[in-house]
Amino acid sequence: MADKIFRVNMSDLTTSIEDVPESWAGHGGRGLTSTIVAAEVEPTCHPLGPNNKLVIAPGLLSGTIAANSGRLSIGAKSPLTGTIKESNAGGTAAQLLARAGCKAIIIEGLPKENTWYSLALTPESITINEETELIGKGNFTVLETLADRLEDKPAILTIGQAGEMKMCSANISIKDPDGNLRSSGRGGLGAVMGSKKIKFITIDPKGGKVEIADSEKFKEANRVFAKALIDHPISQGLGQYGTNVLVNIINESGGLPTRNFTQGQFDGHEAISGETMHDVILERDGKVKHNCHAGCVIQCSQIYNDTKKEKLTAGFEYESIWAMGADCCVDNLDQIAEADRIMDDIGIDTIETSVAMGVAMEGGVLEFGDGAGVLRILQEEVSKGTGLGRIIGNGAGSVGRAYGLTRVPVVKNQAIPAYDPRAIKGIGITYATSTQGADHTMGYTITANILGVGGNVDPLTKEGQIQLSRDLQIATAAIDSTGMCLFIAFAALDNEECLPALVDLLNARFGIGLTMDDVIALGQSILKTERGFNIKAGFTAADDRLPDFFYSEPLPPHNVVFDFTDEEMATFWDF
Amino acid sequence: MADKIFRVNMSDLTTSIEDVPESWAGHGGRGLTSTIVAAEVEPTCHPLGPNNKLVIAPGLLSGTIAANSGRLSIGAKSPLTGTIKESNAGGTAAQLLARAGCKAIIIEGLPKENTWYSLALTPESITINEETELIGKGNFTVLETLADRLEDKPAILTIGQAGEMKMCSANISIKDPDGNLRSSGRGGLGAVMGSKKIKFITIDPKGGKVEIADSEKFKEANRVFAKALIDHPISQGLGQYGTNVLVNIINESGGLPTRNFTQGQFDGHEAISGETMHDVILERDGKVKHNCHAGCVIQCSQIYNDTKKEKLTAGFEYESIWAMGADCCVDNLDQIAEADRIMDDIGIDTIETSVAMGVAMEGGVLEFGDGAGVLRILQEEVSKGTGLGRIIGNGAGSVGRAYGLTRVPVVKNQAIPAYDPRAIKGIGITYATSTQGADHTMGYTITANILGVGGNVDPLTKEGQIQLSRDLQIATAAIDSTGMCLFIAFAALDNEECLPALVDLLNARFGIGLTMDDVIALGQSILKTERGFNIKAGFTAADDRLPDFFYSEPLPPHNVVFDFTDEEMATFWDF
Repeated sequence: MADKIFRVNMSDLTTSIEDVPESWAGHGGRGLTSTIVAAEVEPTCHPLGPNNKLVIAPGLLSGTIAANSGRLSIGAKSPLTGTIKESNAGGTAAQLLARAGCKAIIIEGLPKENTWYSLALTPESITINEETELIGKGNFTVLETLADRLEDKPAILTIGQAGEMKMCSANISIKDPDGNLRSSGRGGLGAVMGSKKIKFITIDPKGGKVEIADSEKFKEANRVFAKALIDHPISQGLGQYGTNVLVNIINESGGLPTRNFTQGQFDGHEAISGETMHDVILERDGKVKHNCHAGCVIQCSQIYNDTKKEKLTAGFEYESIWAMGADCCVDNLDQIAEADRIMDDIGIDTIETSVAMGVAMEGGVLEFGDGAGVLRILQEEVSKGTGLGRIIGNGAGSVGRAYGLTRVPVVKNQAIPAYDPRAIKGIGITYATSTQGADHTMGYTITANILGVGGNVDPLTKEGQIQLSRDLQIATAAIDSTGMCLFIAFAALDNEECLPALVDLLNARFGIGLTMDDVIALGQSILKTERGFNIKAGFTAADDRLPDFFYSEPLPPHNVVFDFTDEEMATFWDF
Repeated sequence: MADKIFRVNMSDLTTSIEDVPESWAGHGGRGLTSTIVAAEVEPTCHPLGPNNKLVIAPGLLSGTIAANSGRLSIGAKSPLTGTIKESNAGGTAAQLLARAGCKAIIIEGLPKENTWYSLALTPESITINEETELIGKGNFTVLETLADRLEDKPAILTIGQAGEMKMCSANISIKDPDGNLRSSGRGGLGAVMGSKKIKFITIDPKGGKVEIADSEKFKEANRVFAKALIDHPISQGLGQYGTNVLVNIINESGGLPTRNFTQGQFDGHEAISGETMHDVILERDGKVKHNCHAGCVIQCSQIYNDTKKEKLTAGFEYESIWAMGADCCVDNLDQIAEADRIMDDIGIDTIETSVAMGVAMEGGVLEFGDGAGVLRILQEEVSKGTGLGRIIGNGAGSVGRAYGLTRVPVVKNQAIPAYDPRAIKGIGITYATSTQGADHTMGYTITANILGVGGNVDPLTKEGQIQLSRDLQIATAAIDSTGMCLFIAFAALDNEECLPALVDLLNARFGIGLTMDDVIALGQSILKTERGFNIKAGFTAADDRLPDFFYSEPLPPHNVVFDFTDEEMATFWDF
């Protein structure tokens, strides 16, 4: 049976299951969410109003045995950036959604009454149910309650208090195979779900399976693909130290944004490094290797325990640790882990919120390094929606505006992540030109700029950066459509068998004959679709730039500024 | 001696007095501030950063005996809207600045140290002085302290706590002839002054006078001009009841935005009307007619006393009374007057702040009608810069974002004033297309839409509205350059002797030979200069529209929506 579109109208509380229009058939994941949002959402609409739509789509390979194919894409017009947005994450939802025969869920309209709901999807239906018990509760309570309430083990998407309060940094959390949370973190999609008054979504495929056109060819391609992933030294480093292996590497490069982006190195880097974390995890009987979705062969996630050897947080990522650590000068891994847990529970993006804390520190709301203050603000202000809590919960740009600050590291109002664009210039191109605001995952130039993956491009000079970012942004748009984790990129860039195997997987799955050129063309067309939406929403070249201070304040230790002109930046779109 | 540019560089604390470049010589007031901002400010710069400039200019006729010529223009890139901005107000500053031989003050850069300053301008110099005593103080304390401190009676421009805290609604207050305050209210220019760490500016012309090329011709033109103003029935109504005469008129039209723009009529309108206010003022020995600057023949200002017959507030305007009254459902003139006084003291725009309160009421921060709650929030939160205070102090859009609301009446992030664009469609065109965000004074279609001035254009139909708004926006840009109060427009539209007399005044003042066509061309070129700045700053047609809810929520009692398409709106710029 062909996959279907599951449509939910929250204005009249009706649902329908529809055939997939032909023009959407070749799309999955980000390509599909962006195509649907561009087709059905008025670009000038209010992101929290009735005309925005929340679109949830598994990747083209999700639900299969293909290694690392379990990423779910969620799209909408972002309340944080005002742009089109796709945020993807692991967990079990992508795989179970694909197995339920769902190409995408489209949630539209707004309820007329002040009533909260949940959605339940099976291969035959999607139902809207009133919800009262879990309203006002955090994500961990949602998971615990639903574990008791539901007999099967469906996939769960949920929002915490931040999403209910429609904070612009609210994420959508997705249950992983062991009951931990993964986050569709960026762009405030949790606020869109909250605006539609949906607290959680369950997905039960009822034993359904994904059909494979040529299963032998699929298995063979997957063998080659998985081996390429496993063999790459960065995959191995990620498995051992998690993404947090990057703290020492980026600190060494002088591009680790510290003290609200005023320094490129953090004195306390050893205390928060991946190596330190690895030892602490082992000491406390945690888990250094953990997969966010079944079939992942990299296993960059982990379980981080507290001093009593009880689980404190899971999926404790470099970006979160950098942001609350170096950027806020908190050199205490346990405080950062506690903050991470609270943010996961409230359901709020750790990057946006932590960078917002750094800006608040600059604004004098609390001192740099005050980890206890951060915890207090998260618990007493953000989770309760006080004035200060809403200022923080609406992100770094919100804090900057509230306190009249100019050193506010955002592009299109989204917080700049863990790589300073002055010392690592390629990533600055990605931040500025990305269709979705500052986001390292849109075109991760750290590969060639720092890690020596896919070649070497000197991070401190301008040469080659625009092309590097462009190539990676195009490739990423395609990868984000497959359901693949972005971390396949390391093998894909260095191992010539990897990408052809990925194309073989697609061809064997659908019985088609894509070439590498087709995949690149797909990536280009996705970027152009996204940009087309943004242009209609009112974005221009004036938005494709970094905040002023990156051009005027030299970053130690290299004492460099970001020096691309707006005219140079505009050449990014020459394709 | 020809007028000069007085330039102040706050980065290196230097000043200079410069000749006026030839291309600026024909400009004054808004035309000059916009020309200078467009020429010298990078459109993409952060409004509170070192690259923004605050430009202060008297009008072309300011400082002369011409009736109603005492308006001062202040310009910059607005921290509220991100657009170019000119805000004008009465008081003594325009006249004394012109008599000091100052064409414009340009304040640029930001101090490196955390030190506050004041500026003192005389015909020979502008000096930068450190200030400590008045930092953290409200505007009334500034006026009282300076009255003691300074021997002469200079003009004073000052910011309150809101400007010091760089709130986006902070205004710049200007002393009037009797020591009351007038406000350059809109667009957060007080935050720009605060970012440059200037608490106040004094202007002492030391007996200087404006030279008139042909003083006999000037006097004769002024006689005709002043008579036209005095004779117009609306001038007379404004003198008797103040601008607040409009409450009953606009309520009757069904276009009085009530309860955060959900109704077009307010049950409590009589309690807050101009007629009621007139009686209360007389009862309490206040003053119903008062001029905001010497030479005003309309005298729409007044002194409003409290029940003990002591002055509570002055310059108590329709917009402020509507916003805190009908829009917040506070039907108590004394509470509104008390709020007005606090806002004047803090130095914050009454329109923006009151509309923000209405949005906060919708968000559940306080109840509609809770005047006491409004006073508490102003005193305990806004003036102290708490989290909630900063949310409110940054305007209606800020409140909407903080609380995830969609019924947020702003255009380009500036609050929509006292005329609902669904029931009075012409003003909707002005709100949407204005180069400066929603602002009734940019093209006051209430003239022909409601008042029958300059013809009649049915407020409820689309026909003629775009042309009406366009003609008025062009004329207003020219009038705002002369130093004339906008209230000359009533006479100008109805009395055929009025505008020619104004042109004669300009010609006699400078010994030139302008025609009416020249004046219209001036207005057009100012609008285009302003729009050119905005386009470079990233604004597009997508910004020239009203918020979604005006298109979808019918407004009682007429049950009408705003129904101009974006394409129709774009034709505004066909000139």
